[in-house]
Amino acid sequence: MKVLITGGAGFLGRRLADKLAGRGTLKGTDGRDHAIDEIVLLDVVAAGGFTDARIRTIVGDISDAALLHRAIDRDTASVFHLAAIVSGQAEADFDLGMRINVDATRSLLDACRASGHGPRVVFTSSVAVYGGDLPATVLDSTALNPQSSYGTQKAIGELLINDYSRKGFIDGRVLRLPTISVRPGKPNKAASSFASGIIREPLNGERSTCPIAPETRVWLLSPRKAIEGLILGHELPAQALGSNRAVNLPGVCVTVREMVTALERVAGTEAAKRVRWECDEATNRIVASWPGAWDTQRAEALGFRGDADFDGIIRAYIEDERVTAFK
Amino acid sequence: MKVLITGGAGFLGRRLADKLAGRGTLKGTDGRDHAIDEIVLLDVVAAGGFTDARIRTIVGDISDAALLHRAIDRDTASVFHLAAIVSGQAEADFDLGMRINVDATRSLLDACRASGHGPRVVFTSSVAVYGGDLPATVLDSTALNPQSSYGTQKAIGELLINDYSRKGFIDGRVLRLPTISVRPGKPNKAASSFASGIIREPLNGERSTCPIAPETRVWLLSPRKAIEGLILGHELPAQALGSNRAVNLPGVCVTVREMVTALERVAGTEAAKRVRWECDEATNRIVASWPGAWDTQRAEALGFRGDADFDGIIRAYIEDERVTAFK
Repeated sequence: MKVLITGGAGFLGRRLADKLAGRGTLKGTDGRDHAIDEIVLLDVVAAGGFTDARIRTIVGDISDAALLHRAIDRDTASVFHLAAIVSGQAEADFDLGMRINVDATRSLLDACRASGHGPRVVFTSSVAVYGGDLPATVLDSTALNPQSSYGTQKAIGELLINDYSRKGFIDGRVLRLPTISVRPGKPNKAASSFASGIIREPLNGERSTCPIAPETRVWLLSPRKAIEGLILGHELPAQALGSNRAVNLPGVCVTVREMVTALERVAGTEAAKRVRWECDEATNRIVASWPGAWDTQRAEALGFRGDADFDGIIRAYIEDERVTAFK
Repeated sequence: MKVLITGGAGFLGRRLADKLAGRGTLKGTDGRDHAIDEIVLLDVVAAGGFTDARIRTIVGDISDAALLHRAIDRDTASVFHLAAIVSGQAEADFDLGMRINVDATRSLLDACRASGHGPRVVFTSSVAVYGGDLPATVLDSTALNPQSSYGTQKAIGELLINDYSRKGFIDGRVLRLPTISVRPGKPNKAASSFASGIIREPLNGERSTCPIAPETRVWLLSPRKAIEGLILGHELPAQALGSNRAVNLPGVCVTVREMVTALERVAGTEAAKRVRWECDEATNRIVASWPGAWDTQRAEALGFRGDADFDGIIRAYIEDERVTAFK
C-alpha cells in the first residue's frame, strides 16, 4: 500500500513520515494491517533529508488537480491531508486561503474518489472552526461558528470529508487538533504562532514578543501526541465514528500567562523574562475567538490521549529537540 | 436601486418579485428605504407573465460566472439567492449539486464582492443542514451535521455567507427555512416534495403517494410566511444578527399523519383518502434526519413569525391558489 502525506515537508508531515516508516504498517479499510510500500510527501518545497527508500517526495502546488491525480492511484490506501494556508495568512490573503484550504482539499477528495477504491483520508481541522458565544467547555454538539477565514475554510473541509465519506467516495476522518505547542523551527503566519514562539525562542536564548493578552485561555497539544492522534485517527474503524467523522482531540487548557509560568518552572526565571507582552488586536481577536477547552469524552472513549500538563509539553520539546541553550 | 432574485422563475422567486414590486422600496445598508428601480429575475427558464416594467428576466446558467458579473453591478443593492438544486436531485447527481449549490453560490458572492459596495445578500438554507443525533428541539447552538449532499452544500453556503459578511465583502443573512408547504404546481425532486403533494394533489381531486413514514415529524412554513420572512430578513440591520448570520425561522411541528388529519378536517374524508402510504427508504432516511422542530426564540425576538397551525396553512393555500376541485 501507498501513503500520501500532503504538507509532507512541514514539521508534522515529516514526523509522521518517520513514524510510519518505523511502524511499517497501517490498517486498511478491511481492518487488517498492510505493509507500507511507499510514503509520498507532497509539498511546495522538497522534504529533504530522508534516507528511507520507501519515502518519496513530490514538489508541486496542491491546487494543481492534475498533480493530485498523478499522486493518488489505485495503490494509495491512505491520505493524510495536512497541507494548509495557516490562519494569519488565510486572513491576510482570502483568495489564497480559499484556493488551498478549500479548492485543493476538494480536488484531493475528487482525486481519491476517482481512484475508485475509497481511500482512508485523515484531515486535520482546528479550534478555529469554533467561535462566537461559546460555552466554557465546547461539546461535540456545539455549533461551529468560525470567526476567521481559516476556520471557515477548515469547517468547509470538514463538511466535504463527511459527505464524501457518507457517499462512499472516501473513508474520511476529521481530527480537530488543539493548537500545537511547542513547534520547532521559526515563527510562521499562523495566529497561533506565539504558542510555540513564547517557549521556543526563550529556550534558545532569544527574545519573543507575545501578541496575545495573558489571560486568554488556549487549548494545547504537543507534537508527540498529535502524531499519535493522527495515526490512531487513521486506524479507527469507520463505524466507531458514527454520523459525524469529526473528533475533538484532547488538549491541555492553560492561559497564556500560565504558559510562561510553566516555562519559568521548567527553564528558570531568565528564560521567562525573555517574553515581552505586546498585544496585537487583530491576532488577539482571532485567538480569543477559539475555545479554551472542549469536552474530550468521545475522543477518550475512542482511545485518543492528550498531554498531562504544559510543563510536560515543554520538557518533551526540550528532549525531542535536544535544546541546551537555556541552561 | 436594483434587486436580483436568483431562481427567480421559481414559485418563491415569482411571489417575492410580486411582493417587492407592490412595496416599491427596500432598506439599504444605510438603514433607509430606497425605491426599487429594477427587479432582475435570473433563472434557467424565463420567468414570464410579469407586466410590471421594473421586472426584467435573465435566462441563463447561474454557474456561469460571467453571467453573474453582468447581472450584478454597482446599482445592485440587494440579492435574494434562492436558486438551488433540490435535495433529492442533489443526492442523485452529486456533481450537479456541488456545481449549483456550492460553486454558483461562491461565484455569486464573488460577483457581489467585485461590485465593491457590499450588497445585502439573503440566502435561503434549510432544515437539511441538521442531522445525526439531534435533541427534540434544535437550538441555535446545535451543531450542523447534514446527512445529505444538499444539506452539506447549504451548510457550506452558510459558512461562505458568514465569512464574506465578516470580511465586509457582502452584508449577508442566512434564513434557514422550515419545509415549505403547501407549494403550488407539480411535484419536484426535493425529498420534501411530499409535504406539498399530499395536500395539493388531494385538493385537486388527484391521488398522492406519501413516501415518508406517518410518524415522522416535520417542520413546516407556508409560502406566505416564507415571503414575509425573506423580506424581514433583508430589512434587519446587520448588528441585530451578531456573530452568526443564520436565523432559524419559526415553523409548525406536525407528524406526516397529522398533516393528513388536518387535510381531512379542512377538506373532508374523501380528500384525505386520496393519500396512499408507500414508504420509500432512501427518501424517508433523508427526511427523518431533519429536525422536527427548532427553538425560535431568536427568530421571534428579531420579528419573524410562523403560521399558527397546519389547518391554517391548508386554508391559506386554498385561498391563494383558488382551489375548488375538492368541494
